[in-house]
Amino acid sequence: MAEQDPAVTVADFDRAIREAIDSKTKPVGALGRLETLAAQIARVQQTLVPTASRCKLTVFAGDHSIAGAGVSAYPREVTRQMLLNFLAEGAAANVIARTLGVEFALVDAGVMGPAVGHPALVSRRIAGGTQNSVERPAMSAAQCEAALRAGREIGGEGSHEAAAFGEMGIGNTSSASLVAAKLLGLPVAGLIGRGTGVDDAGLARKRHVLEAAAARTPAELGPDAALCEYGGFESVMLAGAVLGAAEAGKMVLVDGFIATVSALAAVRISPRVMGNLIFAHRSAESGHSIVLEALGADPLLDLDMRLGEGTGALLAWPLVQAAAAMLRDMASFESAGVSGRT
Amino acid sequence: MAEQDPAVTVADFDRAIREAIDSKTKPVGALGRLETLAAQIARVQQTLVPTASRCKLTVFAGDHSIAGAGVSAYPREVTRQMLLNFLAEGAAANVIARTLGVEFALVDAGVMGPAVGHPALVSRRIAGGTQNSVERPAMSAAQCEAALRAGREIGGEGSHEAAAFGEMGIGNTSSASLVAAKLLGLPVAGLIGRGTGVDDAGLARKRHVLEAAAARTPAELGPDAALCEYGGFESVMLAGAVLGAAEAGKMVLVDGFIATVSALAAVRISPRVMGNLIFAHRSAESGHSIVLEALGADPLLDLDMRLGEGTGALLAWPLVQAAAAMLRDMASFESAGVSGRT
Repeated sequence: MAEQDPAVTVADFDRAIREAIDSKTKPVGALGRLETLAAQIARVQQTLVPTASRCKLTVFAGDHSIAGAGVSAYPREVTRQMLLNFLAEGAAANVIARTLGVEFALVDAGVMGPAVGHPALVSRRIAGGTQNSVERPAMSAAQCEAALRAGREIGGEGSHEAAAFGEMGIGNTSSASLVAAKLLGLPVAGLIGRGTGVDDAGLARKRHVLEAAAARTPAELGPDAALCEYGGFESVMLAGAVLGAAEAGKMVLVDGFIATVSALAAVRISPRVMGNLIFAHRSAESGHSIVLEALGADPLLDLDMRLGEGTGALLAWPLVQAAAAMLRDMASFESAGVSGRT
Repeated sequence: MAEQDPAVTVADFDRAIREAIDSKTKPVGALGRLETLAAQIARVQQTLVPTASRCKLTVFAGDHSIAGAGVSAYPREVTRQMLLNFLAEGAAANVIARTLGVEFALVDAGVMGPAVGHPALVSRRIAGGTQNSVERPAMSAAQCEAALRAGREIGGEGSHEAAAFGEMGIGNTSSASLVAAKLLGLPVAGLIGRGTGVDDAGLARKRHVLEAAAARTPAELGPDAALCEYGGFESVMLAGAVLGAAEAGKMVLVDGFIATVSALAAVRISPRVMGNLIFAHRSAESGHSIVLEALGADPLLDLDMRLGEGTGALLAWPLVQAAAAMLRDMASFESAGVSGRT
């Protein structure tokens, strides 16, 4: 009977994980958060001998009409230029992924201008950029649904155990601030940061623009409405990818502010994905900590980074590898013949 | 003239590093501490195209007579048992090093009992354990000098760019608390933690024992005297290894409490090694933060770990690799044809 009660089964497995970790040749708890991480990996993979051999980073790119309102330190054409930089393997995410042995994929979710043709580029363009959410919804319900569906497909593909997702698109911290505000029912002003680095005048302008955009809709919105009204094609696709990867049983490495807002939307759509999320780093972008707190998340790293592209998520991958290896490969006191506590 | 003024040369090189990092295709400062780390690596290697291809962890093992006074949660024989566990590649440091592609070496600096013969063990035994520092100096001046010399040799060997050093020895947090107290001129009580996990009664006993040991000598000692009076063969050899590695131009990944106390002793012996030290993680062992603060160090990671063995140092290696690769391999705005700020 007890065996068939799911609550007991879960508790039994959690106890088995704890016993396995505590049997390793180290003082109880001495590996700190690596132990908590190992337990999470074991739960995701439902095994006491988890593996973390492959990680893939997928970066989603898209343009935002709201960037035309002067909310970013960089001109809109940078989205397309950076797309080409990714394809030439010169961006930070390329370099860090290569260094850490992480596979890399780039998705055009909706970059302005004609489609770029390149064998390494996955084209899932919804449109050539969103609408200006100060005036109207950033995308139609059908576009939002299509972006989520494309993301879900992409997220569910492949046999890698861990998926990291990044984003790139001028104006997308503004979009993420608005989505977060509406998901959390908070004033947008408290979720606005400097993004790629606007100055004080730029920050004041950004606040003015985002407050006008936020005033268009009720204070709180459900995930689909929030994404449709204020999201970007890249960030909505990223939310879909989180859902797809978690549903496929993968670990999901969650990057900074924008990726975490997408993860929050994914959790609101399907709360059970939460167990698969590994929060990688705390971004320097103000607003990230508020979204993390809403998720009850305490990221592994705090390196004052605020680049996006999945760069923070990448840096947590070696920690995941180490945690899985600890549980899988370390000797126990018994197997190694080491004496226990006096 | 200016070219020959070392101060100007250093400032010029620092400016060149800053310009190289700021030219990369990312907002200025957006990679946070990865940028600071890249700048440090560039200074250590004196190049704007640094490499971080190889890291080697050397773990030093030794026994402490003071462990017989009941200052540890584990019996003294665990040092020898763990030595064998390292040789069987079952300890945490083995597993994490293998996972992260870090080379591994083990040094018997003075483990109790007969010497262990094993092809993978480097035998640099000073003696079969230290003397009890409650009653007398832990080692003679000649032994201390021999341990420093052996460490310096070991630290200077090899062509790896980064050296991580770990330690293992029952009783060695007690030894490190005493060395730190004497180097900093602080009461030892404020530097005592639970080590491998003593309970409240054990902690009270540990405090009593360490205060008795500390009372034997003046409140503040120079590095050689502090190491000789209270050090362990493994931790003194580790201090020597820090000196040797830094003098050979390597980066030194500094682990937790015990390794940081050894690094503090090394810096007191030769202040210029400080520039080569990369502080990897903040240990949960109370006392570590005090020693870090004395060094002006803010570690990269804070994962609530307190195992030693170099495990925390290992986890910072991927960050070093990523930082070096960022500076070496990322495209610049100019090379990638990406527009700058508006």
